[in-house]
Amino acid sequence: MFSVTVRDHIMVAHSFRGDVFGPAQKLHGATFVVDATFKRPQLDDDNIVVDIGLASQELHAICGGLSYQNLDDDPDFTGINTSTEFLAKVIADRLADKAATGGLGAGAGGLTGIAVTLHESHIAWASYERDL
Amino acid sequence: MFSVTVRDHIMVAHSFRGDVFGPAQKLHGATFVVDATFKRPQLDDDNIVVDIGLASQELHAICGGLSYQNLDDDPDFTGINTSTEFLAKVIADRLADKAATGGLGAGAGGLTGIAVTLHESHIAWASYERDL
Amino acid sequence: MFSVTVRDHIMVAHSFRGDVFGPAQKLHGATFVVDATFKRPQLDDDNIVVDIGLASQELHAICGGLSYQNLDDDPDFTGINTSTEFLAKVIADRLADKAATGGLGAGAGGLTGIAVTLHESHIAWASYERDL
Amino acid sequence: MFSVTVRDHIMVAHSFRGDVFGPAQKLHGATFVVDATFKRPQLDDDNIVVDIGLASQELHAICGGLSYQNLDDDPDFTGINTSTEFLAKVIADRLADKAATGGLGAGAGGLTGIAVTLHESHIAWASYERDL
Amino acid sequence: MFSVTVRDHIMVAHSFRGDVFGPAQKLHGATFVVDATFKRPQLDDDNIVVDIGLASQELHAICGGLSYQNLDDDPDFTGINTSTEFLAKVIADRLADKAATGGLGAGAGGLTGIAVTLHESHIAWASYERDL
Amino acid sequence: MFSVTVRDHIMVAHSFRGDVFGPAQKLHGATFVVDATFKRPQLDDDNIVVDIGLASQELHAICGGLSYQNLDDDPDFTGINTSTEFLAKVIADRLADKAATGGLGAGAGGLTGIAVTLHESHIAWASYERDL
Repeated sequence: MFSVTVRDHIMVAHSFRGDVFGPAQKLHGATFVVDATFKRPQLDDDNIVVDIGLASQELHAICGGLSYQNLDDDPDFTGINTSTEFLAKVIADRLADKAATGGLGAGAGGLTGIAVTLHESHIAWASYERDL
Repeated sequence: MFSVTVRDHIMVAHSFRGDVFGPAQKLHGATFVVDATFKRPQLDDDNIVVDIGLASQELHAICGGLSYQNLDDDPDFTGINTSTEFLAKVIADRLADKAATGGLGAGAGGLTGIAVTLHESHIAWASYERDL
Repeated sequence: MFSVTVRDHIMVAHSFRGDVFGPAQKLHGATFVVDATFKRPQLDDDNIVVDIGLASQELHAICGGLSYQNLDDDPDFTGINTSTEFLAKVIADRLADKAATGGLGAGAGGLTGIAVTLHESHIAWASYERDL
Repeated sequence: MFSVTVRDHIMVAHSFRGDVFGPAQKLHGATFVVDATFKRPQLDDDNIVVDIGLASQELHAICGGLSYQNLDDDPDFTGINTSTEFLAKVIADRLADKAATGGLGAGAGGLTGIAVTLHESHIAWASYERDL
Repeated sequence: MFSVTVRDHIMVAHSFRGDVFGPAQKLHGATFVVDATFKRPQLDDDNIVVDIGLASQELHAICGGLSYQNLDDDPDFTGINTSTEFLAKVIADRLADKAATGGLGAGAGGLTGIAVTLHESHIAWASYERDL
Repeated sequence: MFSVTVRDHIMVAHSFRGDVFGPAQKLHGATFVVDATFKRPQLDDDNIVVDIGLASQELHAICGGLSYQNLDDDPDFTGINTSTEFLAKVIADRLADKAATGGLGAGAGGLTGIAVTLHESHIAWASYERDL
């Protein structure tokens, strides 16, 4: 299995609901360093997993749609705890949509999986991995 | 599959028995930066993998039980080479016990796997991964 | 010159005022990984720069006073752009106060400087350095 | 499953053929920080995955055979795009050959998989994973 | 003293002349992860060291002018060993020119120093630091 | 001012004397990731700070003389607390001796300073800096 990963980041405010979140129930914020991994069992005709330029560009666009806002105000997340692991799934699913609709190039048809890791600090991170 | 990882560390002395270990047969030491990963296919009702506060606290307690000692003198490891890979298993198994006995909270019942990575330097690390 | 550095972090929401900040004028957030460095020309009688336990504890307390909140609502920062570089100074000054009032231990009297670096992402960080 | 990883690096020139590569079609270069991971379900009699000294030595030899050259001139890669993901496979396959021919020691017979990750920058890396 | 640092990177081919360079006398290549630090004793009216958007943009432009080429063919470097430390100076001087000609914004007039670090691998980096 | 840094590491056991060290008074151990920085105001005739091959080699030899032992048994450190900051000075002074006696090559005569940083974990490190 081959994979290629590109890194970007978002800077957001949000708050959580539920005792389990302790002080994070208050409005606070986070930088999430975002690693998006694209997987496939065989390389394409150019000997690559994915057009890394397109992959970076689409990840950047998705990050741009999330960054510099209060996620509590994002209609996509009304009533939802935007935990690190949940946001990893949001980004992975949006990348999967891009792959399915040609945004990652013609060669991306061979992709079989996507994984996204969000680093919330030097001591905590979360991931979501799915098939394509 | 979702995962959440938290990081801690231990600082220990130890020695190894066996020619394969070369100079590391002498009493020496290591800092192991410890990454503990918790996995599950679906998020819980709070939209998380695990209570990260509890997970960090239990990992810290396990690290505290290992750190600042000579592992050669730990009765749990008598006659055992406390290699990085072996110690990764020790910590993963102790975390699995915590999960099984409720130490990671009620929601942790949905966890299906644990992986632990120990970084022994900037150029070497080892992991152990198991089901729950 | 000797130095010792300890690392902690804060997770905050905030917004900026001024065209120069572009999209960061909106309420957003950041994880700041905080590195606090203590300096002195000679080691103390224990052969150290500072009691690293106390230094970590006081840095953690200062970070705790800043983290998990919207800095726009903190009375200490009313009308102030809480830029990364400014927050580095806030933390450095609070550590300097601790050193001056004995919070870092008796040996801390020999400290001559403090530097604080705040990492806001994998591609940007800011520092403030001052004498004691 | 257990694993051990060792890190080394190569510094090479190369160029790519194909529009997808954009400016990278010109002769340029890269440092690839190389992480080689060895896997097995059970530890050997010494309580380890692999002789880390041998593993580091063989990885260094393989890196030495690739580094400080223009890969476009390497007869092994004539007419081939030496993408990061492709080079990960090259190194993984060469390590697999070493394992098969005894270069990683007698205990390496128990290895069941190898993964190689090449970091080409702080924002991009690629991997190849295979069975043994 | 305050500072702000932004990170970018270049990927280049080059070769060196001189026995001291050993195998690096052959055409090879490197990724240089570039950290550009801007310094000043007091913050500007916006409470910042420099417009981080402009600083990132100008660093990216300078990196773009160097990347994806064979530095041996760059007329600026004819007959010059483009060592990591030398390239750090090239980038620092180009940033200093930008600051002097307004490319970093009006507030950049208060900058007093620039430092540039180029990371050539996980085990080697070089810096150049200058006044403005 | 120019600088070049190379990285290596040591793995040692040791213990401390003094209440300030808390649990670290017991025999324990550490990996110290060692960064050695060489400084000079002007580059040499080869356009470099120091022969990086020799610098790496000498740092490795110095690390080899410290690693894989219990520092409590090293006659050089009898009755001395081998704190991270103290060990940074030990390595810096040994590198300075090498520079003075030609071990870093003829060009090293132009070096004006050495700094050594020892990383003891992901959350703590110490440095010593001196003139040559």
